Amino acid sequence: MPKLVSQTLISYLYIMEQVPYIFELEMKVRDYEVDYQGIVNNSVYLNYLEHTRHEFCERAGLSFASMHQRGIDPVLRRAEIDYKSPLRSADHFVSCLWIRRQGARFVFGQDLYRLPGREPVLKALITVACIENGRLTRGDILAEAFGKYLQ
Amino acid sequence: MPKLVSQTLISYLYIMEQVPYIFELEMKVRDYEVDYQGIVNNSVYLNYLEHTRHEFCERAGLSFASMHQRGIDPVLRRAEIDYKSPLRSADHFVSCLWIRRQGARFVFGQDLYRLPGREPVLKALITVACIENGRLTRGDILAEAFGKYLQ
Amino acid sequence: MPKLVSQTLISYLYIMEQVPYIFELEMKVRDYEVDYQGIVNNSVYLNYLEHTRHEFCERAGLSFASMHQRGIDPVLRRAEIDYKSPLRSADHFVSCLWIRRQGARFVFGQDLYRLPGREPVLKALITVACIENGRLTRGDILAEAFGKYLQ
Amino acid sequence: MPKLVSQTLISYLYIMEQVPYIFELEMKVRDYEVDYQGIVNNSVYLNYLEHTRHEFCERAGLSFASMHQRGIDPVLRRAEIDYKSPLRSADHFVSCLWIRRQGARFVFGQDLYRLPGREPVLKALITVACIENGRLTRGDILAEAFGKYLQ
Repeated sequence: MPKLVSQTLISYLYIMEQVPYIFELEMKVRDYEVDYQGIVNNSVYLNYLEHTRHEFCERAGLSFASMHQRGIDPVLRRAEIDYKSPLRSADHFVSCLWIRRQGARFVFGQDLYRLPGREPVLKALITVACIENGRLTRGDILAEAFGKYLQ
Repeated sequence: MPKLVSQTLISYLYIMEQVPYIFELEMKVRDYEVDYQGIVNNSVYLNYLEHTRHEFCERAGLSFASMHQRGIDPVLRRAEIDYKSPLRSADHFVSCLWIRRQGARFVFGQDLYRLPGREPVLKALITVACIENGRLTRGDILAEAFGKYLQ
Repeated sequence: MPKLVSQTLISYLYIMEQVPYIFELEMKVRDYEVDYQGIVNNSVYLNYLEHTRHEFCERAGLSFASMHQRGIDPVLRRAEIDYKSPLRSADHFVSCLWIRRQGARFVFGQDLYRLPGREPVLKALITVACIENGRLTRGDILAEAFGKYLQ
Repeated sequence: MPKLVSQTLISYLYIMEQVPYIFELEMKVRDYEVDYQGIVNNSVYLNYLEHTRHEFCERAGLSFASMHQRGIDPVLRRAEIDYKSPLRSADHFVSCLWIRRQGARFVFGQDLYRLPGREPVLKALITVACIENGRLTRGDILAEAFGKYLQ
């Protein structure tokens, strides 16, 4: 059962934080993202994560807008998010990413760290599938672009 | 290992869809929630889920605004979300919820179904902890309010 | 200068609140819309206004999603917004609308009132133009649908 | 009627684009800000404008979060927005700002330009008042901080 083994391996590396990031993006909290509790609203982190994936894809030569125009739409299948410590107004943070192919899916490991100390803010595993003209595909177009970045 | 057993049981019941919901809220997609792919953006579902929890709490006599003023803030610790089928412009859906206490945490099972057919849209497990004046508590104030709703 | 006269007349009626609304939609503030100041963030009101226009259009037989698929996109040209009194967590309010054609443009008068007392929350004039396949049009397709509602 | 004259003067300078900006902030559209029409949703521009004002205030030594903790809340009274040309996925733009005191209010002139060509995207006049412990004030704390920036 190679899939299970590989899954366990990912989890293990993930917990050990031995998985090397292949992309990092610095951002700053904007005040409109902070809710009545004085912390960044839980849904806003998904915006940060998506923006990081899209910036990474752009660097890999893949624009989501142009993929969409060709009928190709990467879509989320699953998100696992651990909220470690909330971001607040004016916080700076770095959004880090690694990626692994798993059958027809791509798993993005995405972690946020507050700057300058790099305290963990959030750890997430985001699973993406590729839809082409309404049908699930093996995502070869993504795999090709991600090539050297895949673990 | 009662926690593991209980966890497995929850997962089992959850998969079997035998867990009875204790709260349901009907909503409709608003066009500004739909992104360039023509589907509701992945982060917006967390807004739907939060709104459902808050409406449920309000019915249970707990207003988040008034809790915040007393220094009590329920915060997300973990979110597991399975995206089954995307919502689109003008879709009607129902947001369903059950809740279970797990040590100092509360686990909300939250599922969305498209109406009128009740096709699954999203299934989520949201884990919430209770912060009082900046410190983690056992959340007794929540437990008391949730009382009869806890499974 | 008929345009100026008509503009003055609209403003006059608007100030006098003698313009009869043709559509009303009740909504409730969702907690994720409230920012660190404890009030609904200024940008969220534009979401409320857009949702109201789209619900009105749907009733008039015009779906924005289906118009978009046919290459027709109503777009904002101008927004004038007077913030009277902020909405807060759990507030109920009603969103009211009237509409007037002005050359190739449509002016939506949109006002929000807190319930149950109907205190003014916000008054806005939203000017919309109609783009067809990338070019500005006279918006006849909108005018036809709005027909009886136009003032 | 000094107010009217001054208002006319502002409008005149504004139209002539002779008002010098005192702050500029470069940003990039994030894909989650783009709606089903393929353009940045109309409400998102208010987020851009707010973020620009807050970044400017931070440079002037004023943090909105710390003002809020002292009971001081600048709030929007009026927004006039002209949408010139929509931003799209991955667009870079610069957000420019000037500020003028007008009685107890502050008027921010805020314009967005697409980069690299600096085509106009949006022009706005945002009027802000200062609430202290729930009551309208003359905003002297803001005026002092803005000092040299006021026109």
